[in-house]
Amino acid sequence: MYEKVKQFKGKALFPVNQFTIIAGPCAVEDEEQLVEMALFLKAFGVTHLRAGAYKPRTSPYTFQGLEEKGLTILQHVRARTGIKIVTEIMDASQIKMYEDNVDIIQVGARNMQNFALLKALGKIKKPILLKRGFGSTIEEWLYACEYLLNEGNDQIILCERGIKTFEPMTRNTLDISSVPIVKSITNIPVFVDPSHSSGRRDLIIPLARAIVAVGADGLMIEVHQQPQYSVSDKDETIDFQEFVSLLEQVQAIATVMGKKIG
Amino acid sequence: MYEKVKQFKGKALFPVNQFTIIAGPCAVEDEEQLVEMALFLKAFGVTHLRAGAYKPRTSPYTFQGLEEKGLTILQHVRARTGIKIVTEIMDASQIKMYEDNVDIIQVGARNMQNFALLKALGKIKKPILLKRGFGSTIEEWLYACEYLLNEGNDQIILCERGIKTFEPMTRNTLDISSVPIVKSITNIPVFVDPSHSSGRRDLIIPLARAIVAVGADGLMIEVHQQPQYSVSDKDETIDFQEFVSLLEQVQAIATVMGKKIG
Amino acid sequence: MYEKVKQFKGKALFPVNQFTIIAGPCAVEDEEQLVEMALFLKAFGVTHLRAGAYKPRTSPYTFQGLEEKGLTILQHVRARTGIKIVTEIMDASQIKMYEDNVDIIQVGARNMQNFALLKALGKIKKPILLKRGFGSTIEEWLYACEYLLNEGNDQIILCERGIKTFEPMTRNTLDISSVPIVKSITNIPVFVDPSHSSGRRDLIIPLARAIVAVGADGLMIEVHQQPQYSVSDKDETIDFQEFVSLLEQVQAIATVMGKKIG
Amino acid sequence: MYEKVKQFKGKALFPVNQFTIIAGPCAVEDEEQLVEMALFLKAFGVTHLRAGAYKPRTSPYTFQGLEEKGLTILQHVRARTGIKIVTEIMDASQIKMYEDNVDIIQVGARNMQNFALLKALGKIKKPILLKRGFGSTIEEWLYACEYLLNEGNDQIILCERGIKTFEPMTRNTLDISSVPIVKSITNIPVFVDPSHSSGRRDLIIPLARAIVAVGADGLMIEVHQQPQYSVSDKDETIDFQEFVSLLEQVQAIATVMGKKIG
Repeated sequence: MYEKVKQFKGKALFPVNQFTIIAGPCAVEDEEQLVEMALFLKAFGVTHLRAGAYKPRTSPYTFQGLEEKGLTILQHVRARTGIKIVTEIMDASQIKMYEDNVDIIQVGARNMQNFALLKALGKIKKPILLKRGFGSTIEEWLYACEYLLNEGNDQIILCERGIKTFEPMTRNTLDISSVPIVKSITNIPVFVDPSHSSGRRDLIIPLARAIVAVGADGLMIEVHQQPQYSVSDKDETIDFQEFVSLLEQVQAIATVMGKKIG
Repeated sequence: MYEKVKQFKGKALFPVNQFTIIAGPCAVEDEEQLVEMALFLKAFGVTHLRAGAYKPRTSPYTFQGLEEKGLTILQHVRARTGIKIVTEIMDASQIKMYEDNVDIIQVGARNMQNFALLKALGKIKKPILLKRGFGSTIEEWLYACEYLLNEGNDQIILCERGIKTFEPMTRNTLDISSVPIVKSITNIPVFVDPSHSSGRRDLIIPLARAIVAVGADGLMIEVHQQPQYSVSDKDETIDFQEFVSLLEQVQAIATVMGKKIG
Repeated sequence: MYEKVKQFKGKALFPVNQFTIIAGPCAVEDEEQLVEMALFLKAFGVTHLRAGAYKPRTSPYTFQGLEEKGLTILQHVRARTGIKIVTEIMDASQIKMYEDNVDIIQVGARNMQNFALLKALGKIKKPILLKRGFGSTIEEWLYACEYLLNEGNDQIILCERGIKTFEPMTRNTLDISSVPIVKSITNIPVFVDPSHSSGRRDLIIPLARAIVAVGADGLMIEVHQQPQYSVSDKDETIDFQEFVSLLEQVQAIATVMGKKIG
Repeated sequence: MYEKVKQFKGKALFPVNQFTIIAGPCAVEDEEQLVEMALFLKAFGVTHLRAGAYKPRTSPYTFQGLEEKGLTILQHVRARTGIKIVTEIMDASQIKMYEDNVDIIQVGARNMQNFALLKALGKIKKPILLKRGFGSTIEEWLYACEYLLNEGNDQIILCERGIKTFEPMTRNTLDISSVPIVKSITNIPVFVDPSHSSGRRDLIIPLARAIVAVGADGLMIEVHQQPQYSVSDKDETIDFQEFVSLLEQVQAIATVMGKKIG
């Protein structure tokens, strides 16, 4: 059994009663654009920027991210704006490089059961955001988390991002029930990513409202100055105006839940 | 294409800005118990009682409902309390009997593509609550609805109740994204049933909050004076105290959404 | 538990060691065409013709079958050729009409849990071919079968036809493992329909080989003189030449299995 | 598009018209036991032994394999018996070690989209057996394969091993249709693993018959001297007697297909 998940008493990664938003573009594209994004987010009280330097892509011919150069840009953006950086790791060999540049290391859905990576990340002192695999049960997800805890890393965020089902109108099916289930088992914070689960820009705001209402601790979303020019995930990325609307609507429900956006 | 669904301009079944709750036990058990339930619901402004007279059961050896006697009890409860009755139909041969006793006729998940039943129900003037089949896509669900509209019945409620997936911690997976998707296509009201989708009493309240927040028009839930003594679905049925708590929490979010529970 | 399924001792519907093929067009279209089909099938030792008079269709605007006129055509084809007729029923109200015209009454995937229909069919003396629902587990399928047995009908064929999964390259996913599972539980014959499960003409022959090799008792397939002019299911229907090739390949494997095509 | 998959012209890994069987225990346990197994397999013409040195496990508390010691044992077994070794890799850092010890490197279902690993394996000259992820579509699987081809490795075997569905009577659902689909797209050999897909010892033989009949190029199965004492996967592992029966039955159908077991 995933005993360390159940008995989790890790130190809090976020202030009590904060509903945390991690937002940003799918991929690192340009430093000035990211600085603008970071300042925009900070102006609204959002303190975590997400952007991929290395991108896991179904096809080898799709843009794979700016890679090392992308990490350097993220480092600059952090230095210039003070925003915290969340970005995805691809392989255990990258850990040292990520430790120096990143505030929260994301393990993507496709690597949720990359046990060599999990064991290596369990040995470091950085917060890990562990996405649920799109073909993985909640139990398998919590066992993946147990790998991190078992090696000694107790700074963890779990992030639901949808599962594969027969329904084709969304990219994956957001399993919103997983949030109260996981929260009934553990104190580890649970976030939800409505962008990857739905693959649809028009669903992000209503799903974000549901996510805060169901009791999640945070939200991970894709936002871009000009989604139509985004190098990837343009169909699921909202623009700044929609993001402001999302913040207003999420804050209104967060208030009912006794929480404040951070 | 489901053109009549898309161009739906049926008369409103519920007041504008009402978040409608349909609640009650899984099955009709006893008249006095149901009268007590109806009065309890009405005291909280809930005007629709659900209870099954005929029950679709996976096994022929499970309690199949009180059948005709159950319908008679529902008729008495309606007469004695003024509450509106929602109950499931099993076969086109029952339509006449249901027209006289029931305010909203429910087509269950297993009958969503019982086209003979849909065509017959399309010819009457009663409101129909059409549940989504647990193995059906949103498109198939809307086409089933088109069968009703195409025969002339424009009093319809759609009700999401979860789909079959590989995740075993819930009975089915609530597809919460289906709500904003359907609402982007049609003006037909969309309800959600968290009881059958989750099969878990402890998830009903958080899911109910998410359901109102995502923009659904109503909620269908199982409630019972003493869930542990319910003849069926005891694991997913909440008690009166939990129902009151649910109402409070749902109303708080409904207020943010500009709606009032009815 | 589905005890009557487990202890099934119904009389054999087919000769021992026969691998039975039920073939024909999706829908009844024309009497002469069907007579030609029946004579063609009989020339190859195939004794059961399938063709839909009433068709369950996702959309109300798709061809719904020739209905009563279709049944009359099937009756004529039976009288003129001596072939046995397998066709799908839509509603319990049709039973009397089907009893007179049909040799095996098919319950389609969408009606697998139409319990009113199952109970009514359990009371008659006709063989029933019960398809597995595309959203139904094997357990639910066997319980549906138990409804038939529990009412007294012990002439039953179970027919696997694919389940809904996330894989989009086939219409449904043929669950071939269901055959040995069901055969380990019951003596009821198990057929498989590769046409509806795959939705792909190019897969029918290899799947048919696998179906006989896995130990199924029979095959249900769509065949048409000119699939491209078929009124429905043209993408999954094979032509006469492919049917002959299928028979040769299936017979070769049936021989290894100690069976003979019938 | 996965163009290199479609235009694949790699050199043949196996003799023409060979149906190749890769068999062995789930995990490396003991050298003498494996030598006995290898000699047993060779006596029946089977030339590839599978056994895990490193095991990907859902739980960190389950036996993780003998690791480096397991690889050493495999090296000894190869040297003593001449059997070819197939074993799973966990991480790109292990590649050098695997190149020296292993004849075919297996990428497991959980690592199918570990793109760092795929890119690294694409740069070496060893055959790779790429399992389909249990949450992955056929398209995603072929794109994963394209990663290998795109880096220059053209010695590849694809291996179907079941996908996650709602059916609980098997561990996963064997997607047998994937075999003719993939074979219609590419010349890369396609194997199937009925052990992991079903999780049920009683299904292995009928599924193996179906696998050869559907047109697969090979089979990967778990076999053990005493399955009940196997350190893992005991419920899906067959014993020597069953393996001999499987070989007989598979050979009979392979003969029909114009193939010979190797």
